[in-house]
Amino acid sequence: MSSSPLSQMGRRIQEPAISWLMRLTLSRPNLSSLAAGFTDNPSLPVRETRRLAEAILSKASTGRAALQYGSTAGDPTLRELTSSHLMAEDSAALSKPAKRGAYSTGRMLITHGSQQLLYITTESLCDEGDIVLVEDPTYFVFLSILQSRGVRTRGIRLEKDGIDLSHLEEVLESLRESGEIRRLKMLYLVTYFQNPSSVTTSFEKKRAALALLSRYEKHAGHPLYLLEDAAYRELRFEGADEASALCAPEGPERVIYAGTYSKPFATGARVGFGLLPEPLHTACLRIKGNHDFGTANLLQQLLAAALKSGDYASHLPHLRARYARKARAMAAAAIEHFPKCIEWDPPRGGLYIWALGPKSLNTGMKSAFFKQALRAGVLYVPGELCFARDLSRRPSKSALRLSFGGAEASVIRCGMERLGCLLKKCQ
Amino acid sequence: MSSSPLSQMGRRIQEPAISWLMRLTLSRPNLSSLAAGFTDNPSLPVRETRRLAEAILSKASTGRAALQYGSTAGDPTLRELTSSHLMAEDSAALSKPAKRGAYSTGRMLITHGSQQLLYITTESLCDEGDIVLVEDPTYFVFLSILQSRGVRTRGIRLEKDGIDLSHLEEVLESLRESGEIRRLKMLYLVTYFQNPSSVTTSFEKKRAALALLSRYEKHAGHPLYLLEDAAYRELRFEGADEASALCAPEGPERVIYAGTYSKPFATGARVGFGLLPEPLHTACLRIKGNHDFGTANLLQQLLAAALKSGDYASHLPHLRARYARKARAMAAAAIEHFPKCIEWDPPRGGLYIWALGPKSLNTGMKSAFFKQALRAGVLYVPGELCFARDLSRRPSKSALRLSFGGAEASVIRCGMERLGCLLKKCQ
Repeated sequence: MSSSPLSQMGRRIQEPAISWLMRLTLSRPNLSSLAAGFTDNPSLPVRETRRLAEAILSKASTGRAALQYGSTAGDPTLRELTSSHLMAEDSAALSKPAKRGAYSTGRMLITHGSQQLLYITTESLCDEGDIVLVEDPTYFVFLSILQSRGVRTRGIRLEKDGIDLSHLEEVLESLRESGEIRRLKMLYLVTYFQNPSSVTTSFEKKRAALALLSRYEKHAGHPLYLLEDAAYRELRFEGADEASALCAPEGPERVIYAGTYSKPFATGARVGFGLLPEPLHTACLRIKGNHDFGTANLLQQLLAAALKSGDYASHLPHLRARYARKARAMAAAAIEHFPKCIEWDPPRGGLYIWALGPKSLNTGMKSAFFKQALRAGVLYVPGELCFARDLSRRPSKSALRLSFGGAEASVIRCGMERLGCLLKKCQ
Repeated sequence: MSSSPLSQMGRRIQEPAISWLMRLTLSRPNLSSLAAGFTDNPSLPVRETRRLAEAILSKASTGRAALQYGSTAGDPTLRELTSSHLMAEDSAALSKPAKRGAYSTGRMLITHGSQQLLYITTESLCDEGDIVLVEDPTYFVFLSILQSRGVRTRGIRLEKDGIDLSHLEEVLESLRESGEIRRLKMLYLVTYFQNPSSVTTSFEKKRAALALLSRYEKHAGHPLYLLEDAAYRELRFEGADEASALCAPEGPERVIYAGTYSKPFATGARVGFGLLPEPLHTACLRIKGNHDFGTANLLQQLLAAALKSGDYASHLPHLRARYARKARAMAAAAIEHFPKCIEWDPPRGGLYIWALGPKSLNTGMKSAFFKQALRAGVLYVPGELCFARDLSRRPSKSALRLSFGGAEASVIRCGMERLGCLLKKCQ
């Protein structure tokens, strides 16, 4: 029996970095982990969820509905409330009413976390050999999805307010010249407090990126989409909100908007959502049916109840204050312990600080620095994991993704001090 | 803009029959639907779930754990309890202790319903053009998964106690002769109270099928798997349990066992599981990570608590009694109203009766009979939807899948009477 029974995907798919990091964490109980993408444990809405679950399950009618199959697209009330919530957010960000059409519940799909939406969208759009543009750096689990499916990636440089538009144009132009633009399917942006860089993309940049993509569609021979991953949008503790790409002129027809309730509310409930234009919505709905018929109804009812009762809205300020404190603790520790050669920006939302060292610093998985950090009892996500495999440039090996999401303030301070010590030695 | 942006899968995937049937149901509120695969609404464990949710969410420690991310493979306690439960079932069916190895938690993956396990298994094993053997008839949503991925299917005739082994051998032999056996990946069997035929496969037949597959592996050049879908196993209200294929000599290395808690307990909680041999377990675990990181922890904690507290065990007899009553109501109505030319067996478990008419009867989606039934206010699943697209034989067009799962006894009686009237006219 010589050959593997596995499919191409089965053979191609690699061990996710996240499980390797998790194993490391579990094997060293005294580790200060600044690596996990977990949310803040003490502020999880246990009391709220208890009350909401009790209200749903104390009546036979609502209880049975929550414990029965639902529709594949998702619970109508949850879709309605999500649509209104999002439209209100965008209207506030624009300082004028956003156009209702883009938020229609008929364009929405409720998923098991926004991760599932990213997966299904990729399935609906990309074949092996297709190309997706991503930020440099980007969300590493999305890179895993693309890698497993044999999709090629090109990295677009990231600036303080989103991708470098001239670099985007340069890459589009080079794809046009090589003819490969016919394989280009979408641009993927994590637009709010990006994982890993914490950068927020300005609405102006989203609009300009869409206009650029639109110009290249005639060369591609098909629509070019912007997949806007807004996973961290609600975790804003400073500054003003930016409108979503849905508000751009091309938005309704070219933007796939992915949002989630996992980060801002009940993480373990895993409810996410997407707004998709046709023909993507229909294709994704059918794929979702094959995956699981629809998101667990009990979870959807809980989220709908949280939105309806105001529990969701009143939980947010509390959560934002928690993250703001933890972000300040991490920033203060960075100021105190990190040498000057490490660049980082104080976060205004999200869960991460992206610390960039001088080129001479190697923070990679196999680096001496990573091993020293482990020995010193601190874990981070090596920045190199967040870069697309794009041979047109050399990915940075000198960054660290530091998370203040899951760790307690004391762990954050301790981990940052240890890291600071090592960084100083590397100077 | 001439061409579609969709992937091959996005273009290939068809509207699932189930959404078309659902739309029909929704558009006619007075319809007696014997089509839906819903579970029995009044017996959903609302009180139990309420109590279990309260116990989990009334303590910060367990509440936070339930609302935080978990591991991709699934909650360790749920895996442990599932493994013990399954091993106890198989030991009872064998009348001797089953071998522990096959049930090890390290081989297990918890999924959003067993549907997700079917999906991920197919992803890990099958490329476009590969071949999967299925029962004739089989579960139509699995056919959708295969169709969307461009996987070819061959149907194996079904007898009263499982597939016709000589037909399986014949098909394997013809695949060997044509060389296509190199593209064969697995045999898919719904082994307990099959959807749609209600047939249960005997353990002897599973063992013999595995032995046959094993003989053809040298021609295939890779392992040939049996995907055992045991979704309806717990819904047995008559007769003895059959051991799972895991108990066959080839079981631990060649069987993928898919089970679920959606049918026998909280449907809307959507928790399923699989036991998989290597290298499938590793591949599926990685794919599951890309899908959603892991099944919603809150749902897993609820199921683990139900198994631990005995709520699951005490719910089963109640549920089985409900389905037994409804099955009897449907069987009595069939005896009273159906003409003699309609063949069906009284169900001993599951949710379905498979009614097979004479060859002259056409029950297909586009048939006059289907339209007449709709006009008479009754909906069924046309049997033709349950047959693989296998050009080597003509699929039967004369069967109806009738479900007693979701409908009330009065609806069942009324629907069966209406159908009986129409069937008599067609004689």
